[in-house]
Amino acid sequence: MRTQVGIVGAGPAGLLLSHLLHLRGIDSVVLEARSREYVEQRVRAGVLEQGTVDLLNEAGVGERMRKEGLPHHGIELRYGGAGHRIPFEKLVPGRAITVYGQQEVVKDLIARRLADGGKILFDVPDVALHSLEKNPYLTFQGERLDCDVIAGCDGFHGVSRPSIPEGVLSIFQRDYPFAWLGILAQVPPSAEELIYAHSDRGFALHSMRTPEISRFYLQVPTDASLDDWPDERIWAELRARLETVPGFALTEGPIFAKDVSAMRSFVAEPMRHGNLYLAGDAAHIVPPTGAKGLNLAVADVRLLTAALADFYETGSTELLDAYSDTCLKRVWRAQHFSWWMTTLLHTFDADDAYGGRLQTSHLDYVTSSTAAATTLAENYVGLPFEPGASHA
Amino acid sequence: MRTQVGIVGAGPAGLLLSHLLHLRGIDSVVLEARSREYVEQRVRAGVLEQGTVDLLNEAGVGERMRKEGLPHHGIELRYGGAGHRIPFEKLVPGRAITVYGQQEVVKDLIARRLADGGKILFDVPDVALHSLEKNPYLTFQGERLDCDVIAGCDGFHGVSRPSIPEGVLSIFQRDYPFAWLGILAQVPPSAEELIYAHSDRGFALHSMRTPEISRFYLQVPTDASLDDWPDERIWAELRARLETVPGFALTEGPIFAKDVSAMRSFVAEPMRHGNLYLAGDAAHIVPPTGAKGLNLAVADVRLLTAALADFYETGSTELLDAYSDTCLKRVWRAQHFSWWMTTLLHTFDADDAYGGRLQTSHLDYVTSSTAAATTLAENYVGLPFEPGASHA
Repeated sequence: MRTQVGIVGAGPAGLLLSHLLHLRGIDSVVLEARSREYVEQRVRAGVLEQGTVDLLNEAGVGERMRKEGLPHHGIELRYGGAGHRIPFEKLVPGRAITVYGQQEVVKDLIARRLADGGKILFDVPDVALHSLEKNPYLTFQGERLDCDVIAGCDGFHGVSRPSIPEGVLSIFQRDYPFAWLGILAQVPPSAEELIYAHSDRGFALHSMRTPEISRFYLQVPTDASLDDWPDERIWAELRARLETVPGFALTEGPIFAKDVSAMRSFVAEPMRHGNLYLAGDAAHIVPPTGAKGLNLAVADVRLLTAALADFYETGSTELLDAYSDTCLKRVWRAQHFSWWMTTLLHTFDADDAYGGRLQTSHLDYVTSSTAAATTLAENYVGLPFEPGASHA
Repeated sequence: MRTQVGIVGAGPAGLLLSHLLHLRGIDSVVLEARSREYVEQRVRAGVLEQGTVDLLNEAGVGERMRKEGLPHHGIELRYGGAGHRIPFEKLVPGRAITVYGQQEVVKDLIARRLADGGKILFDVPDVALHSLEKNPYLTFQGERLDCDVIAGCDGFHGVSRPSIPEGVLSIFQRDYPFAWLGILAQVPPSAEELIYAHSDRGFALHSMRTPEISRFYLQVPTDASLDDWPDERIWAELRARLETVPGFALTEGPIFAKDVSAMRSFVAEPMRHGNLYLAGDAAHIVPPTGAKGLNLAVADVRLLTAALADFYETGSTELLDAYSDTCLKRVWRAQHFSWWMTTLLHTFDADDAYGGRLQTSHLDYVTSSTAAATTLAENYVGLPFEPGASHA
């Protein structure tokens, strides 16, 4: 078999890349270790930046998102017995976020690729990458797929990044001393917008997927086990952390999914080796506090598409050569913002009294200074894909 | 002896308090451990916020500052081989800083107090505070000074704070893993504005006192000794950290003062015990990176004056009772800003590769986002004494 771009992984990065390449007349094959059902049900992020929404719409895959997605024009920071709204409509006019589950994006992209005759091979768990420097190819289940370039879109635990020879990548990493316990519940959201709650008990997030499904997160110890968190304990803890302002009551309902995820910051540089290009979680991980993971993946494959299209149209490798550096500018902005949101809102070492006061002072500042609130808002809705407009 | 307000310490806090009280018809006596010459020569901060300048002018002690002070409308952040100006005139129109040495403020205040018949007793090193809960008084050199209230304006190492009984104060503290080596040199500044330089070698600051006197700082290890820093080494290190952009050359000249100072964040709460009110460094310390120490002291004594005036005019203790809480709001804002500027610009653990990239990303953001640059500018020139205007 032969294709122009061999794509490893049918998550949002790989699928969107395949679709965007198709729109530019470039052939690709997507190889996915898991089943179609699995990737369509996998619960991940749910907040799309303005730029991500615009891109999906321009690429013709935004129809259901426009119908079912929930546009939000602000978030609430809740701490010290009061809620403080960060009003996007005022701080970053014309830019907003859309709540739409990552697996819904995946479903839309798979349906569209298959309708367009795209090749997605599910259930091929033994993919291997070969000859990254020259004439690269992929093998799986006795087959061989030759290609011009390989796109590694198979996430943090995928095979692509480890296929790069030892010593090539520089790794930048930070682990956080807590994890997130996430739940999905069959119950309408308790408020219209997301609530990021800081308290001495730890961080909590009120979010949602649809008008009928709520999503909640709790800061928990890194060694937390789902066995220790029966539904009643989860609701009790959510109440304790979120019912801290007058008039707010949590609406409870059946929990139908639970997960615990580690909080990690990670970047591998460069994002290219020979003819292998990494995109999304394969190259970088952020803690979910800033809702940046999926959006970074979209920004990566947008750039990779433009670079590949330029290469096939003009023969120039200029954009491909610049791919890693260009991506990493946005990656590190998102890394910093995600770290910033995480440290702003989570509860750290209780013995560090100075740190606790610093955190309260920081929250007071973000919720009282227009400039500080704008730094949160502009990062949260997503900085423009092409920077340059807002220079001081 | 008897007075209304017994003031411990003839630094800027104690002297300005004495003068402001005098303007409101309130009698005070200032007791200072050191000589007049010593306090007039003591080299400290040199950057006055807009609000500090306005207050000194309104209080009639700004004449020489208006003539000799240097108004600055921006600072430069220098890193990665480029300089980036933070333009106050654009980001915080109408607000600026004034470079004017703390010891010049002290000289002006002493001259004015003495001209107005104010009582400042220098060279009284044995001041002790008594009976803070009721009928407080001060003793020194066999004398007794009875007063209604005591103002502890004698700095971090002074006697006032330790006079508060054990267990009353909550202490919040953070020490930094580096110190500042400061010099004064008889040489015109090498640039018109302050330059905050970040490099792998450590932080450096280009500053000035007058058009003829430069002030420089170098980040050094906490155990640095002046013996290890002959003049040639200081200039070589300043060149290495500051001559990182094309066309910039350091002008060198005779060094006539050197000092090493620790970098510490410290707050004691509350700032009042009985009839003792702490102001300035006696209650709180910030690392000098944000140039906030002197300005916080001015904000404290401004509030204390208003509270004492209200007490003497109406008998109400409402403002006095609120003094500590009101001060601490501004104190913690400045604590956070000073910590933020310090962590933004200094070189930390070289082994923390992730932290290094985070710092570069943060600098890139502050120098490219109008909102982020405004957070620096509005804190640097000083938030208004009466907050409320800029709420998001």
